[in-house]
Amino acid sequence: MSGNQHDDLAPDMPTDRRLLRGVRTRSAVLRRAVDLASLDGLDGLSFGRVATDTGLSKAGVQTLFRTKEILQLAAVEHARALFIEAVVDPARTEASGVARLRALVENWIVYAETPLFLGGCFRAANMTEFDSRPGTVRDALLRDQRDWRTLLANHFRHAAAAGDIADLDPELAAFQLDAVLLAANTALRLGDSGVTDQVRRILDDMLRPAG
Amino acid sequence: MSGNQHDDLAPDMPTDRRLLRGVRTRSAVLRRAVDLASLDGLDGLSFGRVATDTGLSKAGVQTLFRTKEILQLAAVEHARALFIEAVVDPARTEASGVARLRALVENWIVYAETPLFLGGCFRAANMTEFDSRPGTVRDALLRDQRDWRTLLANHFRHAAAAGDIADLDPELAAFQLDAVLLAANTALRLGDSGVTDQVRRILDDMLRPAG
Repeated sequence: MSGNQHDDLAPDMPTDRRLLRGVRTRSAVLRRAVDLASLDGLDGLSFGRVATDTGLSKAGVQTLFRTKEILQLAAVEHARALFIEAVVDPARTEASGVARLRALVENWIVYAETPLFLGGCFRAANMTEFDSRPGTVRDALLRDQRDWRTLLANHFRHAAAAGDIADLDPELAAFQLDAVLLAANTALRLGDSGVTDQVRRILDDMLRPAG
Repeated sequence: MSGNQHDDLAPDMPTDRRLLRGVRTRSAVLRRAVDLASLDGLDGLSFGRVATDTGLSKAGVQTLFRTKEILQLAAVEHARALFIEAVVDPARTEASGVARLRALVENWIVYAETPLFLGGCFRAANMTEFDSRPGTVRDALLRDQRDWRTLLANHFRHAAAAGDIADLDPELAAFQLDAVLLAANTALRLGDSGVTDQVRRILDDMLRPAG
């Protein structure tokens, strides 16, 4: 799509290039914003800091996002997209139920251990900061949590209905597994790499066969 | 110990009174600091904010604590003492093992639901903020976490050794239960009061009798 050879045929290309440059700038700013927020929380985000880190002017970043709240919401959305890309989508090749749950957890471990974001799990880093503060940012983080837990619950339900695991309350199991993952994220930040085996053992217990 | 009648016999009383006043001021500042840090994290603490909220001068608060780090560490210590007083100590009347675990969890639910601190569980509010930051504050929060999990593990071990519950890995069970409590704290902040029943059901499952 660089399209240099078509410049004469496409008088609107300069605009397209400007748009593309805008998209790239926006994406670079958001990638940095997500890293910063995973370390110090969305509260610590500032136009100045993000601008310095990405080599842009503060005014330039401000023009793109206008308010700190818009920047925060865009960062949540960006983190969500990268999480889905890294954890949720690659697991879709696995069958629903037990196999999918194992794949989701393995992908999550890589996501938190590598980690994808400098400060580890984005939701873990920000949910405890915003849980007492009603507003759009909290709602956005809550949406991530609901969608993730619903996904886990659906596959627990499928596994139980198929008779692959003992009967259980899918929502309760999803809450429990998510709680363990969030605590594991903290342990990984503290350098306790043995926690990944603990996560696998807890999942094994939750997926124990019926009877 | 007001000791007015002994003033003539105790020439050092004015100093004692000053000391007592200092202790009360310190305690009032720390109580407010713990509430603020449970809401916005220890990072958000400032001499100015704490002074305004307690009707003291900023210089007065600064004289008491000298640096922000000392104030943060004193707040962690104060929160720890209040947590032990509210959750750990009242459970000591219960027998070791299953009964003690149930009492600890019930006390913890009151601690997080009432809540004792404005923003709920103090460790939950601050651990995700400091988990990526080596230093004295993180060490202090980590000490709370270790002591709490060790306490839980000891009673899981006792319950299993007594044959009251199925055999389990006490450290793994403590990690899992603590993870559930931290996630429940977030849910309580979000207004989901039904989570306390989820906590009780998960504990019931963990305390299921041996085969």
